[in-house]
Amino acid sequence: MNLCGNLLIRTAEIIAVGTEILMGQIINSNAAYLARELQNLGIDSHYQTVVGDNPDRLLDMLKLAMSRSDVVILTGGLGPTQDDITMEVAARAVGQNLLLDQEAVATIESYFLNRKRPMAKSNLKQALLPEHARSIPNYNGTAPGALIPKMDGEKCSCLLVLLPGPPNENQLMFTETVKPLLQEHATSVLDNTFIHMIDIGESDAAEILADLLDDTHTNPSLAPYASTGEVTFRLTEKRRNGQSGAAAQAMLEQVQQRLGTYIYEIGNRSLTEVVADLLISTAQSAAFVESCTAGQVTAELAKVAGVSAVLRGGLCAYQTPVKASVLGVESAVLASFGAISREAAVQMAEKGRALFEADYCVSVSGNAGPDASEGKAVGLVYIAVAAPEGTYAVEFHFRGNRQKIRDNATKQALNQLRKALLGQLSSDY
Amino acid sequence: MNLCGNLLIRTAEIIAVGTEILMGQIINSNAAYLARELQNLGIDSHYQTVVGDNPDRLLDMLKLAMSRSDVVILTGGLGPTQDDITMEVAARAVGQNLLLDQEAVATIESYFLNRKRPMAKSNLKQALLPEHARSIPNYNGTAPGALIPKMDGEKCSCLLVLLPGPPNENQLMFTETVKPLLQEHATSVLDNTFIHMIDIGESDAAEILADLLDDTHTNPSLAPYASTGEVTFRLTEKRRNGQSGAAAQAMLEQVQQRLGTYIYEIGNRSLTEVVADLLISTAQSAAFVESCTAGQVTAELAKVAGVSAVLRGGLCAYQTPVKASVLGVESAVLASFGAISREAAVQMAEKGRALFEADYCVSVSGNAGPDASEGKAVGLVYIAVAAPEGTYAVEFHFRGNRQKIRDNATKQALNQLRKALLGQLSSDY
Repeated sequence: MNLCGNLLIRTAEIIAVGTEILMGQIINSNAAYLARELQNLGIDSHYQTVVGDNPDRLLDMLKLAMSRSDVVILTGGLGPTQDDITMEVAARAVGQNLLLDQEAVATIESYFLNRKRPMAKSNLKQALLPEHARSIPNYNGTAPGALIPKMDGEKCSCLLVLLPGPPNENQLMFTETVKPLLQEHATSVLDNTFIHMIDIGESDAAEILADLLDDTHTNPSLAPYASTGEVTFRLTEKRRNGQSGAAAQAMLEQVQQRLGTYIYEIGNRSLTEVVADLLISTAQSAAFVESCTAGQVTAELAKVAGVSAVLRGGLCAYQTPVKASVLGVESAVLASFGAISREAAVQMAEKGRALFEADYCVSVSGNAGPDASEGKAVGLVYIAVAAPEGTYAVEFHFRGNRQKIRDNATKQALNQLRKALLGQLSSDY
Repeated sequence: MNLCGNLLIRTAEIIAVGTEILMGQIINSNAAYLARELQNLGIDSHYQTVVGDNPDRLLDMLKLAMSRSDVVILTGGLGPTQDDITMEVAARAVGQNLLLDQEAVATIESYFLNRKRPMAKSNLKQALLPEHARSIPNYNGTAPGALIPKMDGEKCSCLLVLLPGPPNENQLMFTETVKPLLQEHATSVLDNTFIHMIDIGESDAAEILADLLDDTHTNPSLAPYASTGEVTFRLTEKRRNGQSGAAAQAMLEQVQQRLGTYIYEIGNRSLTEVVADLLISTAQSAAFVESCTAGQVTAELAKVAGVSAVLRGGLCAYQTPVKASVLGVESAVLASFGAISREAAVQMAEKGRALFEADYCVSVSGNAGPDASEGKAVGLVYIAVAAPEGTYAVEFHFRGNRQKIRDNATKQALNQLRKALLGQLSSDY
């Protein structure tokens, strides 16, 4: 059975239901996730709203949303308690009765059975769905979602999508069930490729790509994509059946020709994942010696599961005497040049490489602020890489507060390791 | 001059203006910040909305908001470009003409003067304010904010507050200018005290405090406050002039009597800040030896400016052989008990204390997953503290994914150090 007939989906909006978001106790991360997904599907979204667990206000809001959008996605308020009102209010908004949905009952029962936990009777409330609705199975929790068509006679005029609030439930259900349905009814199917760059600013990159960025209404189109601490462009192609994708491929090659040296990933991997994959695929080991980042680089790489095969370890040599006593950096170097110096960074990397018996060792020494240290400016950071073929060192001047400087230094430490692994690193002195 | 007469402020709502939030490229963190501030002022907020840079949609939204809330706070869209429409649309919504505000002109000019940068003429657009508005100075950027009274004849029926989008500008302007004004017009002044606990679950704590939590409409009132990885209660008192605060004090003492051992902070410091302050005030030094957290604990403590006086450093002994070769953990211990064991954790802490010549050394060894390791379950973590008076060790079983387990282990490593510094730590064996 086709749930929403010939409904053409061009616009969508997102309503989050929950007093905890209204009070600022929870950040509305679902809205950001869903907004990105909608954009990638080529569906415009003009509004996001947050309302509390108040039936009258939610009903008013929902009616307004249904009057102006083809799809309304509601998140939260599907639990078993009295406060959870989304399903009931949605049923009122579309003028449908609530019925016990047998598919939803079965899913809830199997959730408790799998976890060998007794099911409270209140959980059955979660299987009450509007009569024309279809349930969305939830593999990570007890609350099923719902797809509810608003019927104008025989015709579906709007689709309500109800998803639970916890992000892991919300996102899995969106990807598995909602996204394919929206794709069927969207006016076009979009194919997105993300091009991730580092070591270049967004405005510089945009200038070099100006003629390709000129008009976002072309097909394919290229546009900057906001991301923190790096530059990302999104290449979007509207696909039709049997279309070759040659135009998108040609555009991607143009970007590669002009900015290839700055591109670290065409796809969805983070810089950290790219570095981990490089180490694992070439079976080379790494270690880190950190001062101002104080363990953050090592901890960042350890986020990737499976990295224990190649990550030897790391030393946080925070206080200057520790650099000499634990690592063996020469006191003369620390005395003449200071701990925040190219010379100290080089020794830290080389001594660390020996200490950890690693193929590569990256060191970070700098001043994250808030005050000048050794007379060195806030933001001055040296990063060195001791590699099998020799040692490289690069000087950076980062801006921002203490944590921003440490975040930038962490990103660059991983980036320098990536370049060394690819044979692209050269010292700047 | 009194800007908004006798306006009583009971309700407020927040509208974020910006296509980047609508597209999910930026998370709407301003809304969460402002919502918490409003709640702490005792002002109810029933709605949060996000609209794009579209004048018609913003105008409709603004009219709706003014019809239902005493205060409407708008964030974003105050820049100098064509896309920045908030001020113009707000002027239309309240039916006032835009005039060049001399105070705003002076602020913008001094911003550029201080930074020795030339001022583009387009920046003067930012000094155009509705005729009855008052500008809000912006010390972190070029866009002034505005307080705009909606006049019904001689009477102010609603107050519009316009703030820029960047959080550092937004928050400073709210704190310095908007908050005092809202306080003057709020129906009551609230005094909030936050009570932070660890080592107890929210439902257990709530059960013990059940009679105090019973009715949130009492004065003072006590309620759980959502926070990640810990339990926080908020004690709220409506204050009037000359009131003693004795009732709130009595309630706080009740909470302390019943749950004092779990309370690590009455106030606004994070656990990390509490630990850093303890180390600094007693002039004792610390070091860390980490396995599954891989530097995260050290990096967390290093977030606090000024900690370099007491943080010696840290070792991430990630691969098992490194625990022996760099740290000197006995191979026999690693062979008999494994690296994930109480015995290994104790040696890691003690060897680390000697290596770094620190007063206290905390070690973390565990399995963050995703797979069993050494036959040890995912989530099993040992934390040991080597202190001047001896060594303690505690076993934990954390739940969740890889990063959740590492986050919990990080929090507990700092917590165990805190307890040791307070003489409250005892081994669980």
